[in-house]
Amino acid sequence: MLKIGMDAMGGDFAPEAAVKGAVMAIEAIGPESRIVLFGDEERIREILRNEGCPAERFDIVHTTEVIEMGDHPAKAFLQKPDSSITVGFGYLAKGLIDGFASAGSTGAMMVGSMQVIKPIEGVIRPTISTVIPTVSGGKALLLDVGLNVDCKPEVLAQYGTIGSIYAEAVLGIASPRVAVLNIGEEETKGNAQIKAAHDLMKECGRFNFVGNIEGSHLFSGKVADVIVCDGFVGNTLLKTVEGLFRINKALGLADAPFWKQMNAEHVGGTPVLGVNAPVIIGHGSSSPLAMKNMILSTERYAQAGLTEKLQRAFNN
Amino acid sequence: MLKIGMDAMGGDFAPEAAVKGAVMAIEAIGPESRIVLFGDEERIREILRNEGCPAERFDIVHTTEVIEMGDHPAKAFLQKPDSSITVGFGYLAKGLIDGFASAGSTGAMMVGSMQVIKPIEGVIRPTISTVIPTVSGGKALLLDVGLNVDCKPEVLAQYGTIGSIYAEAVLGIASPRVAVLNIGEEETKGNAQIKAAHDLMKECGRFNFVGNIEGSHLFSGKVADVIVCDGFVGNTLLKTVEGLFRINKALGLADAPFWKQMNAEHVGGTPVLGVNAPVIIGHGSSSPLAMKNMILSTERYAQAGLTEKLQRAFNN
Repeated sequence: MLKIGMDAMGGDFAPEAAVKGAVMAIEAIGPESRIVLFGDEERIREILRNEGCPAERFDIVHTTEVIEMGDHPAKAFLQKPDSSITVGFGYLAKGLIDGFASAGSTGAMMVGSMQVIKPIEGVIRPTISTVIPTVSGGKALLLDVGLNVDCKPEVLAQYGTIGSIYAEAVLGIASPRVAVLNIGEEETKGNAQIKAAHDLMKECGRFNFVGNIEGSHLFSGKVADVIVCDGFVGNTLLKTVEGLFRINKALGLADAPFWKQMNAEHVGGTPVLGVNAPVIIGHGSSSPLAMKNMILSTERYAQAGLTEKLQRAFNN
Repeated sequence: MLKIGMDAMGGDFAPEAAVKGAVMAIEAIGPESRIVLFGDEERIREILRNEGCPAERFDIVHTTEVIEMGDHPAKAFLQKPDSSITVGFGYLAKGLIDGFASAGSTGAMMVGSMQVIKPIEGVIRPTISTVIPTVSGGKALLLDVGLNVDCKPEVLAQYGTIGSIYAEAVLGIASPRVAVLNIGEEETKGNAQIKAAHDLMKECGRFNFVGNIEGSHLFSGKVADVIVCDGFVGNTLLKTVEGLFRINKALGLADAPFWKQMNAEHVGGTPVLGVNAPVIIGHGSSSPLAMKNMILSTERYAQAGLTEKLQRAFNN
C-alpha cells in the first residue's frame, strides 16, 4: 500500500483547495493507495463534511503550525517544528509516507528536500523538471526549470541521466531521446557552458543522446523526449510559454488539446528529482484540480520506483 | 534623399523573392527614398519586366558573384569581391547607400558589419534585436537574440542603452521602459551574470530602468518596452516562440492579430545594432512580403538617424 502525503495547509487557497483536491483524487488513485493529509484536523474534517466525503477515507495528521509565504524558509522550517511541511518531511524521512506534495512555501519544500530527505549520493545537484505537451499528443520532460540557475556542464550532463530515467519510469517512454537545448543543431554551436555539456553528454553513454535541440522543436516532439537546459533558461522558457498560454486563453484560442495541456492545473506540480524520496512542489495558486493532479503525480512517481532507480544509477 | 540598398541575390528564393519584395516596397517607401538593388542586372531586369514594373524606378548595381549559404563567410567575403554582399557593404561604407539589407549569408553580413562598417566606438559588442508584438497591440524590443551567447554584464548593460535609443528613435516610444530578463521580479533573483547586469543597469542612469522582467510578461506589454538578455537566452526564446507560432498556425489559431504579428514575414529582418551604418539581416526563407518589410525597416532605421544617435551616446 502506498501512502501519499499531502500538505493540506499549502497554497493560496488552503486548506479548502488542498482538501477539495484530495477528495477529487480519492476516486482516481489506486485501490492500494491512501492519502495522508497534514494540517489542522478540525478544519480538514469540516471541509470533508461540507464535501460530503467521509473523513475515514483519509489519514489525517494533525499539525498546529503553518509556514507562511512571507516566512524565511530555512528558519521557519526549524522554528515551526509542528508545521504541516516540517511534519510531512519527518513522516517522509521515516518512511511513514511514500511521497509528499505541497503547494506551500517552495523554499521550505526545498529545505526539506535538501536537508531532511537529502540528495541521492552521487547527484551533484538535484533538479526540478516539468512535463510539457507535444503537438503530436505526446509528452516531453524539460529540466532544469529553475532550481540551478548557474549549472556547470557536469551538472547538465547528470540531468541527462536523471531525465532519461524519469521519462522511462514515469512517462513510459522506452530509450528516451535526450537532447541539450542549444541555439543551433550543429555540434559546434552554443555558448561555452552548453558546448562543454554537449561533449560530456555525447561521451557519457548512459542515455540515448541525440545532440542539440533548438527551441523551435521543444513542443514538436520530433527531436527529443528529454530536454536538458540550465535552470535560468528553463525557468524563463516556462514562464514565457505560460504567458503565451494566458494570452491564447484571453484570445479564446486555448481550447485546442495542445494548449489545454499547457494549463498548469493539469501539470500537477513539479517533482524535485535527485533526492531520496518523492517530493512534489505545486504552484501557490493551485486550484482543487491542480491539487488533485499533484496527488496523482506523487502516487505515479512513488509507484514507478523512481527514487530507487535513480539511487541505483548514481550509486554505480 | 535616402538610398536603401537591397541584396537582390540573398535568400533561398533569390533573386525572385528579393526583387518582387522590392517591387512591393516601391509603393510603400517615402517619395524621397530610392531602392538600390545589388545583383545580376539582367536577371533583375527580367523579373521587373515580368512584374510589369519599370526598371527606371530602381538603381541597379550589377554584380557577378554570389556568396552561397555553404561558403565560409569570412573567406567568401574576400574571395568574392564582386558578390552582391561585398559590393553592397562597399557602397554602404562609402555612403553611397544609407542602409543595406540582405536575406543572404548571415555570416557574411556579420563580416561586413564588423570588418567594413565596424562597431561604433565605445560599443563593446554590437547586437542583433527583434521587435516583438504585445497583446495590447504595442511593440517591444528584445535583444540580444543570438549574436553574443556569452555576454558579460557590461555588455548587457550597454544593450540597455542601445535598446532604449532604438525604441525611442525607431518605435517612437518616449522614455522606453528597459528591463533585464530574469527568473523573478525581486532584485535579488537571477544567476551571477544577470545579478551583476541588474546592478550595472540600475546604476547607469542612461535609460529608464524598471528592473527585472519575467518571461510571462514578455508579450504582455505591462512591464517593459525593451527587454535585455543574453544572446543564448534570446535566441532560444525567439525560436521557441516561432515553434509555438507554427503550432498555432497548424492548429488554425494564428489569425488573431497578436499571433499574426509573430509571422516572421511581417518582422522585416533583424538590424545589427551598434555598427556605423544601418544593416538589416533577413531570414534565408524570406518571402517577397518579408523582403518588402526588410526594405521598409532599413528605410525607417536610416530615417530615424539611429546610427548617429548611437554614435553620440557612446562617444560621450
